[in-house]
Amino acid sequence: MGVLVSGRGTNLRALLEAASQPRYPARIAAVASNRPRCPGLTLAEEQGVPTRCFPLREFAGDTVSRDREMAVWLLRQQCRILVLAGYDRILTEPVLSAFPGRILNLHNSLLPSFPGTMNAVGEALAAGVKVTGCTVHLVDPGKVDGGPILMQAAVEVRDDDDEASLWQRIHEQEWRVLPEAVRLLSLGRVQVEGGRAMIR
Amino acid sequence: MGVLVSGRGTNLRALLEAASQPRYPARIAAVASNRPRCPGLTLAEEQGVPTRCFPLREFAGDTVSRDREMAVWLLRQQCRILVLAGYDRILTEPVLSAFPGRILNLHNSLLPSFPGTMNAVGEALAAGVKVTGCTVHLVDPGKVDGGPILMQAAVEVRDDDDEASLWQRIHEQEWRVLPEAVRLLSLGRVQVEGGRAMIR
Repeated sequence: MGVLVSGRGTNLRALLEAASQPRYPARIAAVASNRPRCPGLTLAEEQGVPTRCFPLREFAGDTVSRDREMAVWLLRQQCRILVLAGYDRILTEPVLSAFPGRILNLHNSLLPSFPGTMNAVGEALAAGVKVTGCTVHLVDPGKVDGGPILMQAAVEVRDDDDEASLWQRIHEQEWRVLPEAVRLLSLGRVQVEGGRAMIR
Repeated sequence: MGVLVSGRGTNLRALLEAASQPRYPARIAAVASNRPRCPGLTLAEEQGVPTRCFPLREFAGDTVSRDREMAVWLLRQQCRILVLAGYDRILTEPVLSAFPGRILNLHNSLLPSFPGTMNAVGEALAAGVKVTGCTVHLVDPGKVDGGPILMQAAVEVRDDDDEASLWQRIHEQEWRVLPEAVRLLSLGRVQVEGGRAMIR
């Protein structure tokens, strides 16, 4: 798999740990980022994973050009699945068409609640929900946070939660469900029927 | 409490059972319905609870007139809290203002997912979510399924679920959280701050 990161890389860390298990069916072939020197990129380098950064400014602000070059590089590293692990940009056509039906996104809410935001945890807190969680879904071109859902995990919101404490518990679930979703997808056990992902 | 029903009355049954416990802090003073001879109304009659039906056609289709008469009747039965337990109509001003901040609604999804529908279970299945559930919230006049949330419970969706099997597991959670939410509200332990309900 290839992994795209923009931030701390804690989900990348969970994937690296899973992929280090002898029976895990996928390995991390490449990690790319839009942000130079983001901690996730550094983590991948430390683990000996091929990394590359594709900052938008090197493409004169042209997202499609950036994504075209990123897709070419990822394919060259023999990635067959692409995992968005805290990647903070919307993908464009070159990347989408390079991995048709094989791009996983992680969102920090129980979709369809709180879509289309990087701060779904804060929004969930502000909305006063008592249960939130996280979602791993296939990326459906044209729908932000809207493709077939592979896995979700619920997290209880406590009255004394702040964003940091709630984030922490959601992260713990993300570190569990993201490697599991990649495992199922790489084993070919995910079947999409009528917009719904079924696990065989 | 007063309870409004339109259908089978399984949530009313859960409330009747809770209220029969000696330490439960509320009792069911009245049950009203918009549908003559709905099973929920019959159940209440059998248990000796005062019941009345307010079919819209007796008010020449005027919902506000119906709700005015219903509010007067509920207050006369000394209801202080109103619980919508599968009531399939939107309340209008006379009922809303008779129970300010003291109307509980039960919705069969994890709000804000799948609001404003009587078939949130079917919509959740069609959307392919892996986690859904139920929500008890205070009714906020003007917002359908939008007031402060008191309790939510998560329910896992299984690949072989149909609407009936998923409904059943959601119902089981509803029968747990609805009496608990009424208990907390009737003990004055619910505090609304900035649109968010906190339990003291």
